Amino acid sequence: MGALEQGHYMDELEENDVELESDSEPEPELESDKEVKEAVRVLLEGIGEDCEREGLKRTPHRVAKAFREGTRGYNQKARDIVKGALFPEAGLVHINGHTGAACGMVLVNDLDLFSYCESCLLPFAIRCHVSYLPSSNRVVGLSKLSRVSDVFAKRLQNPQKLAKEVCAALDASIKPAGVAVVLQCSHVPFPETFVSSSDWNQVCSSARLGALEEDHAQWNDFLALLKLKGVNGIECSNTLQNWCPSLKNTVNGKNMGNNKSYSSMVSAVVSIIRAIGEDPSRKELVSTPYRYVQWLMRFKTSKTPEFKSILNLNANAEELKKEAIMTNGHGSKICYELSLPFCSQCEHHLIPFYGSVHIGWFGNAERCIDRAHLLALVQFYACKLQVQERMTRQIAESIHAWCDKGVAVVVEANHICMISRGIEKVRSSSATISVLGKFATDPVARASFLQSIPKCTG
Amino acid sequence: MGALEQGHYMDELEENDVELESDSEPEPELESDKEVKEAVRVLLEGIGEDCEREGLKRTPHRVAKAFREGTRGYNQKARDIVKGALFPEAGLVHINGHTGAACGMVLVNDLDLFSYCESCLLPFAIRCHVSYLPSSNRVVGLSKLSRVSDVFAKRLQNPQKLAKEVCAALDASIKPAGVAVVLQCSHVPFPETFVSSSDWNQVCSSARLGALEEDHAQWNDFLALLKLKGVNGIECSNTLQNWCPSLKNTVNGKNMGNNKSYSSMVSAVVSIIRAIGEDPSRKELVSTPYRYVQWLMRFKTSKTPEFKSILNLNANAEELKKEAIMTNGHGSKICYELSLPFCSQCEHHLIPFYGSVHIGWFGNAERCIDRAHLLALVQFYACKLQVQERMTRQIAESIHAWCDKGVAVVVEANHICMISRGIEKVRSSSATISVLGKFATDPVARASFLQSIPKCTG
Repeated sequence: MGALEQGHYMDELEENDVELESDSEPEPELESDKEVKEAVRVLLEGIGEDCEREGLKRTPHRVAKAFREGTRGYNQKARDIVKGALFPEAGLVHINGHTGAACGMVLVNDLDLFSYCESCLLPFAIRCHVSYLPSSNRVVGLSKLSRVSDVFAKRLQNPQKLAKEVCAALDASIKPAGVAVVLQCSHVPFPETFVSSSDWNQVCSSARLGALEEDHAQWNDFLALLKLKGVNGIECSNTLQNWCPSLKNTVNGKNMGNNKSYSSMVSAVVSIIRAIGEDPSRKELVSTPYRYVQWLMRFKTSKTPEFKSILNLNANAEELKKEAIMTNGHGSKICYELSLPFCSQCEHHLIPFYGSVHIGWFGNAERCIDRAHLLALVQFYACKLQVQERMTRQIAESIHAWCDKGVAVVVEANHICMISRGIEKVRSSSATISVLGKFATDPVARASFLQSIPKCTG
Repeated sequence: MGALEQGHYMDELEENDVELESDSEPEPELESDKEVKEAVRVLLEGIGEDCEREGLKRTPHRVAKAFREGTRGYNQKARDIVKGALFPEAGLVHINGHTGAACGMVLVNDLDLFSYCESCLLPFAIRCHVSYLPSSNRVVGLSKLSRVSDVFAKRLQNPQKLAKEVCAALDASIKPAGVAVVLQCSHVPFPETFVSSSDWNQVCSSARLGALEEDHAQWNDFLALLKLKGVNGIECSNTLQNWCPSLKNTVNGKNMGNNKSYSSMVSAVVSIIRAIGEDPSRKELVSTPYRYVQWLMRFKTSKTPEFKSILNLNANAEELKKEAIMTNGHGSKICYELSLPFCSQCEHHLIPFYGSVHIGWFGNAERCIDRAHLLALVQFYACKLQVQERMTRQIAESIHAWCDKGVAVVVEANHICMISRGIEKVRSSSATISVLGKFATDPVARASFLQSIPKCTG
């Protein structure tokens, strides 16, 4: 369908003096990065990918960098962060009360953090709320509450452990009269459970020490302040049973490809865990390599068996599209199928992106397709290493192949790689559009389709 | 009122091996940092501050670091950022349309950025939306749209210039078929105009090139995609007349303290502008030092004359409180005055923090105070170099001094230093509480007061 004229492309690049895939600033390579890169190559081959194709060439490098930055907390200490930012503040004399550096409660709410799930190595999002009761005539710089929390977020974690560690570290480094940490955590969904972005697994965890643990009234003040700041839904569910989707399935070797490749993939993940400074034999991490490999195998280049059975077809896109042509027609000229959920994986960072696909086409009695089949088509193109632009084009082109009057496809997505790594743009999202045939030449049809898509309210 | 027992404090610190105000990692000092530090000392002295008091000791260091990081864009090139992230993608063959790397529109919306206003040197917030039409069979990594935008945000800017520069840089580095940039900018308010956080000056600017400029239908697609993503209110007001509050006033030397100090403050700001790599004689920057100094003088340690005239008092807090005692009483035992707006300045970073103060007290016919006087009290304590914890305490203690049954004060604030610098936690905010007298001992009274405060809906 699509065509990449490599020769022409390289010429053009040379002309413009634009290098493909070179780093602007070469960094010295760390030993641990080398190990992670090698492991990522094993994983890419294990899911049937060609490490030398353009989009993947530097993926090992990017993944190594992301792991290094994402787990930098192993090399940081809360004490070092806090000690430069303790400021003397006046206490109270002859007045009964809690104020300023004499236990006047301080809350910093809605700190957006990211961590890595120790069960499956995928990122999870954290809305972090921290409170402490200053004592000994000193307060700490507000930003340090965020920085200390981030030290522990940048490790392999689960929500409860993270809350406890942040709380204990703040207690030890600030020595306050009390400290409380509440975390609202959201786990990246797995493709098979993903219906919409509100389906992220949510867990709330908390930890408290000192007066905030012992004095019920102080704890109530904290909860009241949180409510005041618009923080709701913090009924703490300390059970982690349904936290990580990977914990729902027993790990086994079924559908894992040949055993040799499978065991080398597992070893590769073990070496990643070791390279970031963790102990792969720690109880919570023992099964993590199996779970990560199992998750990764969902994005194997060939079609997965589960996918076949859903469709009850000899599943490749060509056959899919024949099956999908149905005889009962729509009356309207432009047909829509909107808000088809998908969960894919960014081939540049091996991190999920997810969202909705909206499809419009010029249909008639002969060219009709039901939602289930379009959903299957979307999942077919989502369940592999992808980029959003390509996925949008592939969906459009495959529909165009059986319905060539006109196709429009809009993909809305949230890229975890945009928010959990480097640039950390937590509110950002993206949209791509493909228009073929009549939709390309008729702006009115295009506008009509775009208007039919439900607006994002976020 | 408050008491800081310095001797005892230092002992305690020593005991705990916690250093005051030392950097965890000493950095090599840059020549430009030295100049900025020296300039900041001149400015602090100019507003009557003691550079040697604990909270201010390292403020010159922090301000220099913030300026360096906040204007790092002068040392970055869009081309370097993009060239490592151009990926080959297939185009179209034998199909009429716009898709993938053949002009399939790509939008990245809601990138939160910060910049510095070239008119007054204060930060402004940007919600940035970028779109481009890929061409020549290649797409750019999505995060690069954010990184390139940030290169130009990290300079002294105004909204229109910023949009134009980002647009031109993306055009030159990606060579797309078209590019569009829409910026929703919000300027930090000035104390005298601040009523609530919705009062930030908003300006929307935009720039576009190529097919997104020439093809009306493509531009409409872009607007439709933005709408889809929940981005509204982008009617672009390209006039900058009411953008920066400092532009509303003609700069003059009135109320600026003695002339000598004033002119050395202006020279200090000129040297900061030069140190960050800008040309102080650039047309838009010529009056900036005057405006920055004028803004800074609002936070002079002594009371400002404007403040006196508002109150029509011999304005110091002692006298203020006497004036404020009125004879008409409330029937209820607990009196409230809620959502009193304030705009203060963080003494650690010389960057504003702003929000609302809520005050509760046990009043009777003798102990009553009207909103205007409480507002004046709040402004008195806000209009200086501050920290939120201290301001909360000072307000509580000064009310307690004439009404000693019980006082509760809650301060809700957004700290620009938490979002424009280092940690960039754009959603975060903070709350502090002081309770004295009966409010300290009676949790029910405290809870009742806290419940009376209007909830944040954000």
